[in-house]
Amino acid sequence: MNSIFTTLPGGSLTSPQGFLAGAVASGLKASGGPDLGLVFSPAQCQAAGLFTRNRIKAAPVLLSRRHLARGKARAIVANAGCANACTGPQGLEDAQEMARLTAGKLGLEAEEVLVASTGVIGRRLPMEKLRKGIDEIGLSREGGHDFVRAIMTTDTFPKETALALETGGRRLLVAGCAKGAGMVHPDLATMLAFLTTDALVDGAFLKVALKRAADLSFNMITVDGDTSPNDMAIILASGQAGNQPIVEGSPEASIFQEALEQVCIHLARSIARDGEGARHLLEVKVEGAVSPLQARKAARAIASSPLVKAMVYGADPNWGRIAAALGRSGARVEEGKLEIYLDSLCLFQGRPLTFARDEVRGILRRPEVPIRAVLNLGGASATAWGCDLTPDYVKINSEYTT
Amino acid sequence: MNSIFTTLPGGSLTSPQGFLAGAVASGLKASGGPDLGLVFSPAQCQAAGLFTRNRIKAAPVLLSRRHLARGKARAIVANAGCANACTGPQGLEDAQEMARLTAGKLGLEAEEVLVASTGVIGRRLPMEKLRKGIDEIGLSREGGHDFVRAIMTTDTFPKETALALETGGRRLLVAGCAKGAGMVHPDLATMLAFLTTDALVDGAFLKVALKRAADLSFNMITVDGDTSPNDMAIILASGQAGNQPIVEGSPEASIFQEALEQVCIHLARSIARDGEGARHLLEVKVEGAVSPLQARKAARAIASSPLVKAMVYGADPNWGRIAAALGRSGARVEEGKLEIYLDSLCLFQGRPLTFARDEVRGILRRPEVPIRAVLNLGGASATAWGCDLTPDYVKINSEYTT
Repeated sequence: MNSIFTTLPGGSLTSPQGFLAGAVASGLKASGGPDLGLVFSPAQCQAAGLFTRNRIKAAPVLLSRRHLARGKARAIVANAGCANACTGPQGLEDAQEMARLTAGKLGLEAEEVLVASTGVIGRRLPMEKLRKGIDEIGLSREGGHDFVRAIMTTDTFPKETALALETGGRRLLVAGCAKGAGMVHPDLATMLAFLTTDALVDGAFLKVALKRAADLSFNMITVDGDTSPNDMAIILASGQAGNQPIVEGSPEASIFQEALEQVCIHLARSIARDGEGARHLLEVKVEGAVSPLQARKAARAIASSPLVKAMVYGADPNWGRIAAALGRSGARVEEGKLEIYLDSLCLFQGRPLTFARDEVRGILRRPEVPIRAVLNLGGASATAWGCDLTPDYVKINSEYTT
Repeated sequence: MNSIFTTLPGGSLTSPQGFLAGAVASGLKASGGPDLGLVFSPAQCQAAGLFTRNRIKAAPVLLSRRHLARGKARAIVANAGCANACTGPQGLEDAQEMARLTAGKLGLEAEEVLVASTGVIGRRLPMEKLRKGIDEIGLSREGGHDFVRAIMTTDTFPKETALALETGGRRLLVAGCAKGAGMVHPDLATMLAFLTTDALVDGAFLKVALKRAADLSFNMITVDGDTSPNDMAIILASGQAGNQPIVEGSPEASIFQEALEQVCIHLARSIARDGEGARHLLEVKVEGAVSPLQARKAARAIASSPLVKAMVYGADPNWGRIAAALGRSGARVEEGKLEIYLDSLCLFQGRPLTFARDEVRGILRRPEVPIRAVLNLGGASATAWGCDLTPDYVKINSEYTT
């Protein structure tokens, strides 16, 4: 991590100035845990969002996209336990009511409220519980920690972080939280990410910055186009730090961009590490590709291959599966030029190399397994993250609604 | 099945006239089972083949594609236990030696021999064992059953069938065998299919007929472009039935085409049913798509979704995952027009319908689970096959080389 940034110990979505948050257990989760969260900025925020490319879009996605059209927002209400997806016109009405109730509670316009949901698809939101829950949520400056717990589904730990940076004599904070994406694989569970900053950021730049950061992070754990109906990433910039507006092309912009990328990569790695049933984080670097797009495709194909994931689970040195995943990724690959590494150990260099089986098994047993493929065809590289595939994944996903 | 065709009881690759086959245990499989098979036609055959689109192609794929350039072949030698993939120039020499040894044994040119391998990637073929094995294989008219056993890897049962058809006063046979494709999912294990017929078939038509049949069968269990380095499907036509040559556009051509499709679909369904660890066959029909390509994409996306597969394993009525897989398939889908069925039970019709949970669970527990999505956007339809995802899949694939 670059030294100009400092990670805030205990940082959360409400670390940046101007944000309050809170959560309640409204009864949507069978466990009885917190399941409804609220983030609020008393001041108007610049806001930007990225939404699922799935053709089936959940009601909260349709609504929040519409509410973000002006690039402004002041609140996010999010629930777990029910995705409000495939719920037709009734689902949209329910999402609108969530926004209205939140707006009423906080004295906002409904259009200033963004809505997010995650959970089972095809069931109507239990509106009676939500009405009561929204009414009861208390907000505080420490509420970020409660908020992230409320959006967890099969996550085993909350994913949140906050970074401080100094620029133009001002201290700015960038923070984020996320909920996990199941197996972190093609048709995964929902991924939700919420980001806050107290920097004053130009609206056009904020949109671009979020897209760039997501491409290096969230889009490197979920295969493009292979998304759930509910995926979204949202950023709110409160402007409370008192800095000059950050605009595209300025030195401040590149520092802010880098901070946002670090926050998003931290969250993405946390999601991958916490894939359902996972025991290992895979970090896959592809180098020497002919284009950045091909590097990204290749890295994601390896990180999301069920056979590579099962190989890591079993610490089985079956590296040929890395080559097979590369070969079907759509990226240009020439067997004669290809090199495959586990950490710094070369297993293949145009032909199989002999290796000590136990050394390979040792690397595959680490909590973080570094896989590297060098294509030697060009100058582009990319990094993707995944997790191992375990029998627990199957167990979790075969009993989701029951 | 159309009544003009008869399934031969106990049919195999050597049911059609003019084919001999056999197999031995050459020591490539740790189990000590048969692992090396040979098919031989004393007469020259028309031949055609389809090969993996993976950028990493195994040596036997490179060699067999080259040997098929003239559209003629008389023998297939195939081994399990070692894929001879990612083995560089040495691998190609080894595949060539397999062809040469087989040609020497049978009195053929090496170019008349096709070679196929399946097993672990990145290891050299144990040529000493293969030399001995090829020498020892005995051939017979009943050898088809031995051949299919020799190409099995994680398959739990041999996949073979033979159909008889009457056309132009002649009885023709079309037969085939195959080995399974792991999870039958994106980056699966190898799929090998071998087909024989005693019909006299025009070379150009044979190529087209094989491609069409594969598109309705093998390509509906494996996602296009997501293939192993070793996949291949080969057909040999011995011409021993004494019929007039079957050429494109003739009535005989459409009957032959249909028989070939039935054989290939039978093998494809068997492969899906026998996916690693599988307990259920999924048959996914998509109707009302705007184009055949979109129908195919949509059906395959559902049949290969890990979340849909895990849902079936657990008999968990989480049908929203079918909608989510459809939505990310790339096919045009409109939620308001979409209908989703399990067998004849409608679960979603523009909005979720109420259903009896136990009825759904009952359907999901059947050996064959029929899933149907009606898009109501056009006139195209397609069928794909898959299997459920079970903890056994993970176990099998985490211990493959150890």
